[in-house]
Amino acid sequence: MHKGDLLYTGKAKSVFRTDMKGILLMEFRDDITAFDGKKKDVLSSKGRLNAQVSAYLFRLLEKNGIKTHFLGMPDDTHMLVRELEMIPLEVIVRNIAAGSMVRTYPIEEGTVLEPPVIMIDYKDDERHDPLLNDDLIIALRILTPEELAVVKELAHRINRVLSDFFATLGITLVDFKMEFGRAEGEILLADEISMDSMRLWETGTRKSLDKDVYRFSKGDVMETYARVAQVITSAGREN
Amino acid sequence: MHKGDLLYTGKAKSVFRTDMKGILLMEFRDDITAFDGKKKDVLSSKGRLNAQVSAYLFRLLEKNGIKTHFLGMPDDTHMLVRELEMIPLEVIVRNIAAGSMVRTYPIEEGTVLEPPVIMIDYKDDERHDPLLNDDLIIALRILTPEELAVVKELAHRINRVLSDFFATLGITLVDFKMEFGRAEGEILLADEISMDSMRLWETGTRKSLDKDVYRFSKGDVMETYARVAQVITSAGREN
Repeated sequence: MHKGDLLYTGKAKSVFRTDMKGILLMEFRDDITAFDGKKKDVLSSKGRLNAQVSAYLFRLLEKNGIKTHFLGMPDDTHMLVRELEMIPLEVIVRNIAAGSMVRTYPIEEGTVLEPPVIMIDYKDDERHDPLLNDDLIIALRILTPEELAVVKELAHRINRVLSDFFATLGITLVDFKMEFGRAEGEILLADEISMDSMRLWETGTRKSLDKDVYRFSKGDVMETYARVAQVITSAGREN
Repeated sequence: MHKGDLLYTGKAKSVFRTDMKGILLMEFRDDITAFDGKKKDVLSSKGRLNAQVSAYLFRLLEKNGIKTHFLGMPDDTHMLVRELEMIPLEVIVRNIAAGSMVRTYPIEEGTVLEPPVIMIDYKDDERHDPLLNDDLIIALRILTPEELAVVKELAHRINRVLSDFFATLGITLVDFKMEFGRAEGEILLADEISMDSMRLWETGTRKSLDKDVYRFSKGDVMETYARVAQVITSAGREN
């Protein structure tokens, strides 16, 4: 696999061209950041663990009929993905109120959200990823009304698959972030789904099993990431 | 009319009980504020002009079948209104991109929004009136899904009545803010509709005829408010 030109570099991943048209190489780096980049560190193995978990969950979603950009893993920290026209949105599904939702709105942490709440932010670091609403998404011509309906339906379906999977592991999927892209008129799940982009609680105790351990210095981040990755990928062996 | 206990005092209005059950007295003060209260002044006649314009526009809306809290004007700066269970939302309709919309999102000032964009903020000064989306409004139990549909439909109808009216005066209704309340299972338009809550441009020149004159020190605020009030209420005499 030839690692070609750097196409994009974000806070924790870099994306490179390959020698194959329409196929990109996504590198999961060991960088970790929080609070809009105000807190940052490099944690050995983090890239590998997030790549592993992302690959596992993309495979799980594909098995459940969700199209994703995932193609394969050439090694521990790289993912081959289909090149998409990325949609500049962060689509967040919340099953339980936590994080910025409880800091911004009058709702108590731990409140069960039934039906789950979808929040869609405009992905733009300089603008600090402002929240959008349906009218804005359409007025800004980010999605057509039909595409917006597809994205929301996909978000709910993905949430059901992941929530059910985590429930079997004694883990509650509190909320998670997704990005989508277009290819040949279709909308596919892209980016990553990892401990950086999900909020996971040990069911019952509400113990953080995700980036909140880093954000709020709740313990050994890498020990948590390694344990969660182990639990997730072990479940894989039984499939 | 007996002015009873002060029930609520905001940045530019105060609300008092009266000796009549279910009827409140709304006082339009001369205070003017902008930028989340960071800029503030007292401008003589401002309360009177906004009260006059609000009363005129509420009467116009009532004539067009929109239910409002407006009952009458006992004097120049006071409005008698029906007591409602207020809904803590600021409902903004935008016909043209301007103001916070162009500061927050990638859209150029002056872009015509067709259909108009509705944005709904949670009314809470301490939280800086954060934007909501439909899922949040329902999850926070601020409105039922049915009520949310009613509020949006009312917002669009009110916008059409006001936009058409202003067009006859050579004025473009760029955007405006509304608040609603409940009474006996119905949702009514409440609060005020004035130069403080609307963004008005002289059609063609885009000259500000509203609180932006104050916000951005574009000229003599009270001269502008007086001229706009004069134009609006003169139109009234022909009705």
